[in-house]
Amino acid sequence: MSQRIHNFNAGPAVLPEPVLKRAQEALWDVDGSGMGILEHSHRGKLFERVITETEATARRLASIPDDYAVLFVQGGASQQFAMVPMNLLPAGGTADYLLTGVWAEKAAEEARKFGTVHVAASGAAGKYARLPAPADCRYSEHPAYVHLTTNNTIYGTQWPSLPPLPDGVPLVADASSDIMSRPIEVPRYGLIYAGAQKNIGPSGIVLVIVRKDLLERAPKSLPVMLQYRTFARERSLYNTPPTFAIWLVGEVLTWIAEQGGLTGMAARNQAKAGMLYDFLDGSGLFRGTAAPDSRSLMNVCFRCADEKLESEFIAESERQGFAGLKGHRAVGGMRASLYNACPPESVTALVALMREFERTHG
Amino acid sequence: MSQRIHNFNAGPAVLPEPVLKRAQEALWDVDGSGMGILEHSHRGKLFERVITETEATARRLASIPDDYAVLFVQGGASQQFAMVPMNLLPAGGTADYLLTGVWAEKAAEEARKFGTVHVAASGAAGKYARLPAPADCRYSEHPAYVHLTTNNTIYGTQWPSLPPLPDGVPLVADASSDIMSRPIEVPRYGLIYAGAQKNIGPSGIVLVIVRKDLLERAPKSLPVMLQYRTFARERSLYNTPPTFAIWLVGEVLTWIAEQGGLTGMAARNQAKAGMLYDFLDGSGLFRGTAAPDSRSLMNVCFRCADEKLESEFIAESERQGFAGLKGHRAVGGMRASLYNACPPESVTALVALMREFERTHG
Repeated sequence: MSQRIHNFNAGPAVLPEPVLKRAQEALWDVDGSGMGILEHSHRGKLFERVITETEATARRLASIPDDYAVLFVQGGASQQFAMVPMNLLPAGGTADYLLTGVWAEKAAEEARKFGTVHVAASGAAGKYARLPAPADCRYSEHPAYVHLTTNNTIYGTQWPSLPPLPDGVPLVADASSDIMSRPIEVPRYGLIYAGAQKNIGPSGIVLVIVRKDLLERAPKSLPVMLQYRTFARERSLYNTPPTFAIWLVGEVLTWIAEQGGLTGMAARNQAKAGMLYDFLDGSGLFRGTAAPDSRSLMNVCFRCADEKLESEFIAESERQGFAGLKGHRAVGGMRASLYNACPPESVTALVALMREFERTHG
Repeated sequence: MSQRIHNFNAGPAVLPEPVLKRAQEALWDVDGSGMGILEHSHRGKLFERVITETEATARRLASIPDDYAVLFVQGGASQQFAMVPMNLLPAGGTADYLLTGVWAEKAAEEARKFGTVHVAASGAAGKYARLPAPADCRYSEHPAYVHLTTNNTIYGTQWPSLPPLPDGVPLVADASSDIMSRPIEVPRYGLIYAGAQKNIGPSGIVLVIVRKDLLERAPKSLPVMLQYRTFARERSLYNTPPTFAIWLVGEVLTWIAEQGGLTGMAARNQAKAGMLYDFLDGSGLFRGTAAPDSRSLMNVCFRCADEKLESEFIAESERQGFAGLKGHRAVGGMRASLYNACPPESVTALVALMREFERTHG
């Protein structure tokens, strides 16, 4: 068994080691079936059980009510940026977007291809280091929906709770980077979508949770694969789904349940991020870049006073067996992504590395 | 190492055992990187090499010329049914479809949402047991493209060579069920798409080979994830791709290269299918259902005189460690899918099983 390193990648990201071990077995022969999980028909009994149980585990973990459908869709969040307006924005309608970073901007750009986008708030002037204040969220008169990004990977910000929202308007959330990392009140949302590759599995699969009454907004003239309705009606089995990805999401969700579910995950994630923010707040060399009231538990972004020192730190971290600490190219600096599967031991090791670097470079 | 069974699934399907063994290792630690293949960033050096080499191997195997782009897209062939007309069918234009089965019909249905579909030929009257004769292919005056399905899984038919086609019109092919199973003359096509889960990998990834000049036909108002242009420009890395699926396709393509490339695969596939058709042609109990001149090397469909005997045969095959021999629900009977990775030994075993069944039930 070779040595694994401390993986702080922003996604695809580290997965729980017990899940990887189960996956190794399942590739050759899953559940004694004489075939690997990749080789099973999506119409067979074994995969039928896999998809049913994966959905059931998601429902249990996030207390998803029966009037919501749970879907497995391909194309990543970027395809959702288009599917949301295609399905939910009627011709001539307006959708409100809260701009908290590049991903929210991209979501709004796609929506503009299908209707009017009203920017309800934007953190662009402050380079997205802070979330909009409640008083700065100004909605249009009758938006078809309000869209927000729950966690912003590039800037390390995360809505601590939902902003004020207009009554009776469905909230659509891109939760790709914090899904299942803490409890979520599903009934407050109309639609939640999340690429799996950060907190719940591999890339190549998106979890969609959608209130069933919204499914019928979509025109039937849309391509069948771009209607949420198709996925709801066919239980995500209209065509061949990414079977291994769904199996793996099921395994990660089961692992989350074993760690105490979403409250257990929240405590674990709070402890990990707290350790790192506490160090940053006391450091003379490193500083966190997100406004304290907007700090993300998933992506901790930090910098040094000069870029040369940052490059040295990143190089030193790689020599010491740490991966993924370079910040996004749009902002520079450093970033530690602490998704669900990131072990607390990796964060302890990172703080020790930073402390030692500060001692020798301070 | 547990016992693996004879897998004749129609897709997802059996994978080469050496590839599964490499995948087991790579899940934990790929190429000594200290991280599993699922955990690597799609922007990192390792995955950059993976996607570059996977494309290069595909190009070498199928002699794909430089004026063709090789893309990795999500959503399965069913999403391609819509992407093809969205990208290639101009407003008011007509596309010609050769209907050879349910999948071709579904492709045409999606195209009707975007323009006029002209049915250039249809095998529906003969229940798709035979491909249209050259004389029966009648094209419209100026089609934007001609679409065909190279192999028809449900009926066990496969174009032995291309039908006559109008000059200068791009041919679009759904090659999901026979891609990389025999040599292909890419320059005769405008666009080829193929879900990977039958001949070259797992479900959740589609290989698209497209002549570069066709990329510019698409209106820029399309969602960015539904433009082939985006995938070509960003080398399939506009957003996070299904990294494991692409890695696995690369491994399967390398395995194909090691077996003698596409001519090696063609010989192997011809031998496998030949063994089974020879038995069928001499059998008093079983009979092949596809017209002899339309027979598929990928899916061999066969029946008995009565359904009771068929049920008995399928039950017996399952008791003896064979999976996937039940025919598609649309046609009944039996089907053996003999994709690239299906070992010749499995076909030998199947013929022995059928011979014994005939001896005891004839």
